[in-house]
Amino acid sequence: MSAHFERVALIGLGLIGGSIALAARRAGAAGRIVGYARSEQTRAAARRLGLCDEVAESAAEAVAGADLVILCVPVGAMRAVAAEIGPALAEGVVVSDVGSVKGAVIAALEVLPAHVHVVPAHPLAGTEHSGPESGFAELFDNRYCLVTPLPGGDSGAKGRLADFWRALGANVEEMAPERHDLVLAVTSHAPHLIAYTMVGVADDMRRVTKSEVIKYSAAGFRDFTRIAASDPTMWRDVFLNNKAATLEILGRFTEELFALQRAIRTGDGDQLHDYFTRTRAIRRGIIDAGQDTAAPDFGRAPTRKPDVRKPSE
Amino acid sequence: MSAHFERVALIGLGLIGGSIALAARRAGAAGRIVGYARSEQTRAAARRLGLCDEVAESAAEAVAGADLVILCVPVGAMRAVAAEIGPALAEGVVVSDVGSVKGAVIAALEVLPAHVHVVPAHPLAGTEHSGPESGFAELFDNRYCLVTPLPGGDSGAKGRLADFWRALGANVEEMAPERHDLVLAVTSHAPHLIAYTMVGVADDMRRVTKSEVIKYSAAGFRDFTRIAASDPTMWRDVFLNNKAATLEILGRFTEELFALQRAIRTGDGDQLHDYFTRTRAIRRGIIDAGQDTAAPDFGRAPTRKPDVRKPSE
Ligand SMILES: NC(=O)c1ccc[n+]([C@@H]2O[C@H](COP(=O)([O-])OP(=O)(O)OC[C@H]3O[C@@H](n4cnc5c(N)ncnc54)[C@H](OP(=O)(O)O)[C@@H]3O)[C@@H](O)[C@H]2O)c1
Ligand SMILES: NC(=O)c1ccc[n+]([C@@H]2O[C@H](COP(=O)([O-])OP(=O)(O)OC[C@H]3O[C@@H](n4cnc5c(N)ncnc54)[C@H](OP(=O)(O)O)[C@@H]3O)[C@@H](O)[C@H]2O)c1
Repeated sequence: MSAHFERVALIGLGLIGGSIALAARRAGAAGRIVGYARSEQTRAAARRLGLCDEVAESAAEAVAGADLVILCVPVGAMRAVAAEIGPALAEGVVVSDVGSVKGAVIAALEVLPAHVHVVPAHPLAGTEHSGPESGFAELFDNRYCLVTPLPGGDSGAKGRLADFWRALGANVEEMAPERHDLVLAVTSHAPHLIAYTMVGVADDMRRVTKSEVIKYSAAGFRDFTRIAASDPTMWRDVFLNNKAATLEILGRFTEELFALQRAIRTGDGDQLHDYFTRTRAIRRGIIDAGQDTAAPDFGRAPTRKPDVRKPSE
Repeated sequence: MSAHFERVALIGLGLIGGSIALAARRAGAAGRIVGYARSEQTRAAARRLGLCDEVAESAAEAVAGADLVILCVPVGAMRAVAAEIGPALAEGVVVSDVGSVKGAVIAALEVLPAHVHVVPAHPLAGTEHSGPESGFAELFDNRYCLVTPLPGGDSGAKGRLADFWRALGANVEEMAPERHDLVLAVTSHAPHLIAYTMVGVADDMRRVTKSEVIKYSAAGFRDFTRIAASDPTMWRDVFLNNKAATLEILGRFTEELFALQRAIRTGDGDQLHDYFTRTRAIRRGIIDAGQDTAAPDFGRAPTRKPDVRKPSE
């Protein structure tokens, strides 16, 4: 595959920035990859791991001469980083980001100079780990990357960014920013807040000692703790920057939860059974869409797993 | 390993009953395994799969002459099954169950005759699948099985049941029934209801079409849909039979959720960050307790997984 960009600058070298570096190298999608992270510690780790061809000492130095710049920092840091690199950006460079929220990030990127092509994007891929050690080249394979182009944006730049993500393994789709923020509030942001909350409740329980909750963590809770182990800064920024959509979905969630609580209290088994039957179908859809497998999840190390069962489809 | 029981009768041949049959055979923990399920379809599947040495045509026939009987039916069916088998039970037989709720099941088992030894238990192991095809011998390996003995119960019977579960691979612990029901409300029952609710909300969203929610299901939501794909009958029965503890935990959950929603609304980033930092620690505890691994979860088929990363501990 030919190198799509001559010099790719990655600002932020955590899970996402590090994985982009590794995936771009695997794909030969970049002539040269230059990275920058704010802490000396992360820059040293990136050098030790060989994530990039070069680790710069400032964001401005990293972006100088780049034809693609991707901001891989928390959503709340986008504006300051954009302001910092602005003066160093070459004419016509494609500037993108990986932020989990799009509306607020697009507003933040308005500080960029007019002579660059802004193409916001969000790869729907991640793990609960963060930092430079957590990146890996396969992260984006067969995952979606949502591009949320600006009205009147350069279509050539958009096409080149889409090609870059395809080279990294992702399936690229376009979506309007507001729609992105609502869809993600349903599929990711609200579920994360709910998982954080449930784990917080467990931690609070005085009568149930912490160690018992940990010791006997069954399937449901164990999954919640994994979700709730995600990076606090990233998620604080997501909620503060996707406030309206998240609060709307949480409002609906609370309404439904109250209805089910009432069914439990009044002993309305039919209502519960009907509800649980309906939610099963959506799972089937996710498996059919190739976004998960029907293999049972044991929450165990792969070496302990029995042979994968015949999927039921 | 010697056969701990001569004739083990399993009433209910779904995920748990089927897995007990397979695990007992693997361990040589039973001289003969006799199974029964209410539908002809499940009995036929059990025969085809060779789950048991013998599939009986009635529950009474299955338990006749057994020295261990385990009820592997939904919690709400325990009383009727116990009433049905009562007259056929031999003197001194150990009667146990695997119900996810203990207080209500213990009350249901009061219909059993006085000459049997009732030893209630709950293996903390499962998947989101159900039915006879979903069982496998490794399900209980290194999982806890909580025994909730009755006051004044026979300690020999309790010891024999505990040995049986150890032979099946489980770590056996004792717990009072009320405590069991509260701990499980935190670690399993409330998380399941919350997952069902969130998936229901997603399904309801009119502006976000179902197909988009499914298509772009990111990590958080995907895990919720897996939890919410669990058997509707089993879970209806769990909630109806562990009403008080589940409602108490849900009440606490709602309180905390409102506090976090408020922090989002008012833009209190510090409160969110502190909360998310605290919940991270509990995850660490679960990994240290060996109930999950630190390997990142990609929600992919194992064959697609990159090499397991070095766990961060
Ligand atoms: N994790 C996911 O699942 C996921 C998925 C899709 C998109 N995203 C988005 O990807 C972005 C990065 O997330 P990540 O998971 O890669 O996070 P991460 O592993 O924590 O890495 C974040 C990087 O940003 C830098 N950074 C943090 N705060 C900064 C600030 N105030 N100013 C400048 N740089 C700062 C960090 O530098 P130091 O290391 O020097 O502190 C680090 O290099 C976020 O916008 C997130 O919303 C995340
Ligand atoms: N799944 C888990 O994660 C898990 C974990 C620990 C404990 N448990 C407990 O284990 C028990 C069984 O769960 P499972 O997952 O094995 O369920 P399952 O796979 O759905 O199997 C249930 C079995 O019970 C039979 N059954 C259902 N309703 C009945 C009724 N009204 N009367 C008589 N028999 C009936 C079914 O017979 P047919 O097939 O003929 O319908 C089937 O053989 C439940 O008490 C559950 O709380 C489950």
